[in-house]
Amino acid sequence: MADTVWDRVVLGIDPGTNVMGYGVIGIKGKQPFMITMGVLTLGRMESHYMKLHRIYQRVQGLVEQYLPDEFAIEAPFYGKNVQSMLKLGRAQGVAMAAALSRDVPIFEYEPRKVKMAITGNGGASKEQVKEMLIRILSIDRDSLLPELDATDALAVGLCHFYESSRPVPSGGSKSWKDFIASHPERVK
Amino acid sequence: MADTVWDRVVLGIDPGTNVMGYGVIGIKGKQPFMITMGVLTLGRMESHYMKLHRIYQRVQGLVEQYLPDEFAIEAPFYGKNVQSMLKLGRAQGVAMAAALSRDVPIFEYEPRKVKMAITGNGGASKEQVKEMLIRILSIDRDSLLPELDATDALAVGLCHFYESSRPVPSGGSKSWKDFIASHPERVK
Repeated sequence: MADTVWDRVVLGIDPGTNVMGYGVIGIKGKQPFMITMGVLTLGRMESHYMKLHRIYQRVQGLVEQYLPDEFAIEAPFYGKNVQSMLKLGRAQGVAMAAALSRDVPIFEYEPRKVKMAITGNGGASKEQVKEMLIRILSIDRDSLLPELDATDALAVGLCHFYESSRPVPSGGSKSWKDFIASHPERVK
Repeated sequence: MADTVWDRVVLGIDPGTNVMGYGVIGIKGKQPFMITMGVLTLGRMESHYMKLHRIYQRVQGLVEQYLPDEFAIEAPFYGKNVQSMLKLGRAQGVAMAAALSRDVPIFEYEPRKVKMAITGNGGASKEQVKEMLIRILSIDRDSLLPELDATDALAVGLCHFYESSRPVPSGGSKSWKDFIASHPERVK
């Protein structure tokens, strides 16, 4: 695939305060492939700001290396408590800044939506998502990282590809209300 | 003051999801002065990502223009609900990314701590903080913006100047435990 010129490239990110997963998907025609996947492990001894700096730098490096057309981020809407949500928001924010600084449009998806898009089941396990990714993206099992944060990031990238490839409803049968109901992420 | 070469410059930021206040303080010797202050108003019709992009761009512009030595941010630790804290975290995150991208060290202070540092009263009103800023920073009353988000940002910058100027405890009387207890923001 080294010489492939992709029609589109999607960068998927699953940011957390301890580990950030990332996955890059290339689309050729209507077929998605995995370009790369990885994890950034944030040490327990690192300061909060050092972690944010490293997330920013890694995402910026990925944007410069793979020149994604779109940026898809896994974003839970509810967390355990306000303090953890503030920290998660900061991790998301620095990752988003790296995309925004290169004018890469951002799309976000809830974990349940990602699982539904990949497996057809919003309650699927991370292992089930991983198995589907291997099949859909024709991934060599040996080249797959064991870290589920990386497969989660690939999954959100693939979810975005599916969501953005769906035929746009035309004619009078679908209302804006239906569109908004099926695309809550577009109306934030 | 146009030709003044400052010993130190502190950029204070009070980020929110609707308005971001900013204030730049220059220190000459032991005396702080206001260099500039302002607000970035984020339109209600703008998308969440557009707001984040504008916060990032404005903070990056301020960092490039004023070359601050330090970045001080007002950061409440508790909010109304997890959803608003996630959004606040993102706004803080993109502002921090702009500082981190230029290796400007970040310091954060709770609103109560800022009020205490400026007025001696953690429960002071925003108006009281503003009046103290006018005196301490020798601000011409006519040049002061009416927006309290801007004075809040100046206040967090001045709070950081005070906090970083305090004599460091020396000798055996103060333990690390005492230091950590009095500087919780250093051990995140």
